[in-house]
Amino acid sequence: MPGGPRWDRRRVLRTGAAAFGGAGAGWSASALVANGSAAAAPTDGPARVVGPSAGAETVPVVGTHQAGVDTPPQAHLALVGWDLREDAGVVGLTRMMRLLSDDAARLASGTAALADTEPELAAHPARLTVTFGFGPRVLRDLVPAGRRPRLDELPGFDRDRLDPRWGQTDVVAQVCCDDPTTLAHARRMLVKDARTFAQVRWIQQGFRTARGTVPDGTTMRNLMGQVDGTVNLAPAEPDFDPLVWSGDDALAGGTFLVVRRIRMQLDKWDRVDRVGREVVVGRRLDTGAPLTGVTEFDEPDFAATDRFGFPVIDPASHVARARSADPRERFLRRAYSYTEPDPARSTGEDSGLVFLAFAADPARQFVPVQRRLDELDRLNEWVVAIGSAVYAIPPAAPQGGYVGQQLLEGKSTGEKSPS
Amino acid sequence: MPGGPRWDRRRVLRTGAAAFGGAGAGWSASALVANGSAAAAPTDGPARVVGPSAGAETVPVVGTHQAGVDTPPQAHLALVGWDLREDAGVVGLTRMMRLLSDDAARLASGTAALADTEPELAAHPARLTVTFGFGPRVLRDLVPAGRRPRLDELPGFDRDRLDPRWGQTDVVAQVCCDDPTTLAHARRMLVKDARTFAQVRWIQQGFRTARGTVPDGTTMRNLMGQVDGTVNLAPAEPDFDPLVWSGDDALAGGTFLVVRRIRMQLDKWDRVDRVGREVVVGRRLDTGAPLTGVTEFDEPDFAATDRFGFPVIDPASHVARARSADPRERFLRRAYSYTEPDPARSTGEDSGLVFLAFAADPARQFVPVQRRLDELDRLNEWVVAIGSAVYAIPPAAPQGGYVGQQLLEGKSTGEKSPS
Repeated sequence: MPGGPRWDRRRVLRTGAAAFGGAGAGWSASALVANGSAAAAPTDGPARVVGPSAGAETVPVVGTHQAGVDTPPQAHLALVGWDLREDAGVVGLTRMMRLLSDDAARLASGTAALADTEPELAAHPARLTVTFGFGPRVLRDLVPAGRRPRLDELPGFDRDRLDPRWGQTDVVAQVCCDDPTTLAHARRMLVKDARTFAQVRWIQQGFRTARGTVPDGTTMRNLMGQVDGTVNLAPAEPDFDPLVWSGDDALAGGTFLVVRRIRMQLDKWDRVDRVGREVVVGRRLDTGAPLTGVTEFDEPDFAATDRFGFPVIDPASHVARARSADPRERFLRRAYSYTEPDPARSTGEDSGLVFLAFAADPARQFVPVQRRLDELDRLNEWVVAIGSAVYAIPPAAPQGGYVGQQLLEGKSTGEKSPS
Repeated sequence: MPGGPRWDRRRVLRTGAAAFGGAGAGWSASALVANGSAAAAPTDGPARVVGPSAGAETVPVVGTHQAGVDTPPQAHLALVGWDLREDAGVVGLTRMMRLLSDDAARLASGTAALADTEPELAAHPARLTVTFGFGPRVLRDLVPAGRRPRLDELPGFDRDRLDPRWGQTDVVAQVCCDDPTTLAHARRMLVKDARTFAQVRWIQQGFRTARGTVPDGTTMRNLMGQVDGTVNLAPAEPDFDPLVWSGDDALAGGTFLVVRRIRMQLDKWDRVDRVGREVVVGRRLDTGAPLTGVTEFDEPDFAATDRFGFPVIDPASHVARARSADPRERFLRRAYSYTEPDPARSTGEDSGLVFLAFAADPARQFVPVQRRLDELDRLNEWVVAIGSAVYAIPPAAPQGGYVGQQLLEGKSTGEKSPS
């Protein structure tokens, strides 16, 4: 991927977002749509906020996909996992999704939800998106066999130390926003309106970089200090659509979401010096360049050896183990850092990554990569998955309908799926 | 305070921050200093980020006060409370403050800390400030009587439901920043460097509004949807200095910090309709105006009656009870919202306010107000203090020294305190 992928202007305009190329970054663009009209497309340069107000920017749902998948990541995340109540059934889930879809559409446009108790907190959408998904049990029990996309729970990985507290749930909402107060309000509205039908199992909060801190499209750094997400699918790549959007007719316009809650053992990581860290990761810490390269998006040369004949990039390094020879084993990452007070830990905190990956087929794209990392990855010494879940992400709601309607009721009321 | 206070340009420039008036807002200005040079002073208008990059903005410590007190509130908060280890003593505390003061100064300027394990995460200071304080036990046990400012623990309040988890600690750091990743890194550096000397009791994370969401100086809204902090001291007010900076010679250039962790019972608040909420607060929810006024900064008319002869502003409302006839009973508020996942609660979250107040004399300024609210305040039905602590905030470090040095070692090495 020399030079890195770029957003394709036509494609992004078609979906209602203005796009512009970055310096080879995977997420080289930002959907900047102020009050629904596409904003001007700036070029590279220092960080800035475009438009009259960053708080007024919206990410409309246009076309067949839910927002929040091919949307450049916003600054903050609240991922809500619900379990349906025993008696909810398909009727309950339908009512819940009708309510929540309406909430999401209003809130994303900067409008109060129906019966919003704090309508003023909805006034600054700040690129709010809400992306809903269904867990395997919902598909199995509540979606008729003829409309059911195939979704297997993830296989077990030896190194995982899963805590049921962060486990698989029936329904998920990925709520993302550049403003933390708007996000807290939106999340609360959704949780309130779902309460009759479902119980919150967990809320996973996360953050990246505040809007305006760095130029849009800069690859994020995680809390270990690494540039994280260099090799990522970008919407303009020809492979993006087949690798992200489901090829399953039952989920046309949709995708799947893999959630992995990855705890970082930062106190242990502190004991590794800079050279050691770069060996572990296989990339330079300052630029994110592979140890065989100069800039972040240089292709790693796994065959290169040093003057003693040893490989420059350790074959057990994260970059080597994560890389697949099979171009189909790629997916769209959209991760967020987390840090939560934890009085039980000597550091006073529990920190890590809410790893989010969207893929047309997790079993074919994500699982082989994760299996390889599970077998061997120097980074495993400092990271451990404590939560794991997978969801089918339905397409956008049909006109006048709700998210998930095509699965729960069929497509009769909605628009046709794209080819 | 008709029209609201404004920042005084001379004063703010003296302390190294560019200032500009807002539409009567208490926090009507923003310290915009990009790379140490004062930025241009914009006027009112839509939200924006000034300067080449919001991430590059710094808040230097200039003069005799620590930064983070009269600094306009940044978007994010991490408040760290430590207990000194048994064997730390004055030697340990001195070493700790030397280390942490150095970390704070470097990080606030966008420079990595000494032995920073992730120097790249320090590159975008985004108005980072670190403000240190000492609890009553430190003053009593480690500061010689002749240099000891008077600090009493807060009295008990009947309605408090204090959880020792959020109680008084020996040392505090108020870390504030517009960027959540920079903040997480700075907080972690401080916690690491303090580890030999002190144990983290709690970390209180909080947020306001992202930089650029609303015009700088807009009064924040809390998670109940109220405009929160209309009546606040502004640095340009003649009363600001005597009400905020300590008149005690032992703490010249310093102040005191009151921390109250206030849980909001939002699920119960949901049952109150809009009219009811406005009666409880005594202000309109949309504009924040008192029920007798039109705009946020109108002075409430507690004598006004409706056509039935009843007071327009309920004498038990929050605005009526919080208001004092004594102008000395005012202080500087700098609150942050919090919301944390809490699986034990049906809402899945615990939300509220990290109430922070700076005052020259909490016993005279804060306690009478809190006592009145404790006796009677309609809002008490929905809010409860679960944490409470108080700290002496030393002046800025003397040249070449560390924060707290004037207390621990006397002023011989430092500059003189201001009059």
